[in-house]
Amino acid sequence: MEIDFKNIKIIGFDADDTLWVNETYFRETEERFAELLEGYETKNKIDQELFKTEMDNLDTYGYGIKSFVLSMIESALDLSNNKISQETIVEILNLGKKMISHPVEVLDGVEQVLGKLVNKYRLIVLTKGDLLDQERKLEKSGISKYFHHVEVLSDKKENNYKNLLEHLGIQTDEFLMIGNSLKSDILPILNIGAKAIHIPFHTTWVHEMVEDAEEVNGHLKLNSLTEVLKYLDN
Amino acid sequence: MEIDFKNIKIIGFDADDTLWVNETYFRETEERFAELLEGYETKNKIDQELFKTEMDNLDTYGYGIKSFVLSMIESALDLSNNKISQETIVEILNLGKKMISHPVEVLDGVEQVLGKLVNKYRLIVLTKGDLLDQERKLEKSGISKYFHHVEVLSDKKENNYKNLLEHLGIQTDEFLMIGNSLKSDILPILNIGAKAIHIPFHTTWVHEMVEDAEEVNGHLKLNSLTEVLKYLDN
Repeated sequence: MEIDFKNIKIIGFDADDTLWVNETYFRETEERFAELLEGYETKNKIDQELFKTEMDNLDTYGYGIKSFVLSMIESALDLSNNKISQETIVEILNLGKKMISHPVEVLDGVEQVLGKLVNKYRLIVLTKGDLLDQERKLEKSGISKYFHHVEVLSDKKENNYKNLLEHLGIQTDEFLMIGNSLKSDILPILNIGAKAIHIPFHTTWVHEMVEDAEEVNGHLKLNSLTEVLKYLDN
Repeated sequence: MEIDFKNIKIIGFDADDTLWVNETYFRETEERFAELLEGYETKNKIDQELFKTEMDNLDTYGYGIKSFVLSMIESALDLSNNKISQETIVEILNLGKKMISHPVEVLDGVEQVLGKLVNKYRLIVLTKGDLLDQERKLEKSGISKYFHHVEVLSDKKENNYKNLLEHLGIQTDEFLMIGNSLKSDILPILNIGAKAIHIPFHTTWVHEMVEDAEEVNGHLKLNSLTEVLKYLDN
């Protein structure tokens, strides 16, 4: 199917794992967390329990590093029957601070692509997670100059996107979303009638995975951001 | 000085302690935290150390309940030289969850005022803190229908307001901010040339306090939100 991008005026970019590396640091921190807990459970059980705690807390805490740290502390206490040492809790707090202050690694080709698209489209960053954290990453990334502004959503479901387009006064058929998550960046966008380009990242959080059966057509799937230049005016 | 509100088209409302009670729950949780730590330090020292930890972490964690919980855990470990019990850390996590799920108490007169102003102005909620938490409070408050949308800022400094007005396409002289914090809701707004109405709440977080000397003129100070109806079209 040929997808027609000629009405597009505004492009929303997912940030984490679309513009810069993110999931990798969560995976590394989970590895470190499993090492801290290794006296109490198998690595497999530790991974599972942490994920379960994160999911149980998702409605309460939402996305982002602070939520992740709070869930790590809760899991560490649970998994050890409250025997985990106080020093380990200090270490978990420090793992979180290290993630927050991590340098931003912009993905290959991103700056080149933004530099071309910015002349033809209004570009916005459209992400979920922690507002302060995402603003800070954009600042540190050196690519904030290409974006009209950043929108941080509490979640990326159809209603979040609908409300956003409405308050920005954007018509659905003028909007294109580019991101790495089928679940958050592509499916809800197609369901509201906007356009989407999917660029997978090598690592995907389990929570962001969708069953193959759920995959719908109607979006373009590319291997790297650079390829969007073949499909969009620049 | 007579302040002229005739150009105003958009009104931004601070949320915490302007539309609904907030600071009170932080104070109550601080009391409970001091009780949990009372074997280690005087109440005064515990209060001071927690505040110091929050300020040290402000650039890293930002505002909101999750940041507050992480700072309470860090303080508890610090103040007790890592001797605080694991059960107490579980209690601190639970204090945070209790704050997050607390019912929303809309302040007196709010609904009446919004119901009148909504016919003449575009109303937005303009708050800092945690995005998910603020969206949830607005939802639970039952007053979301009066607002065009909610904007959560990572901070409320001049630049945050400037960027916001720019991306919403609002002229400075069309904008009025109503809030309880001189530091966050009034001073930066006056400095960028917009209008402001200050409605103090009985409890103010130390971090939000300004020296009397810093108080500037140019804003209207009222005792309750209901009084704004005397000054604005409705």
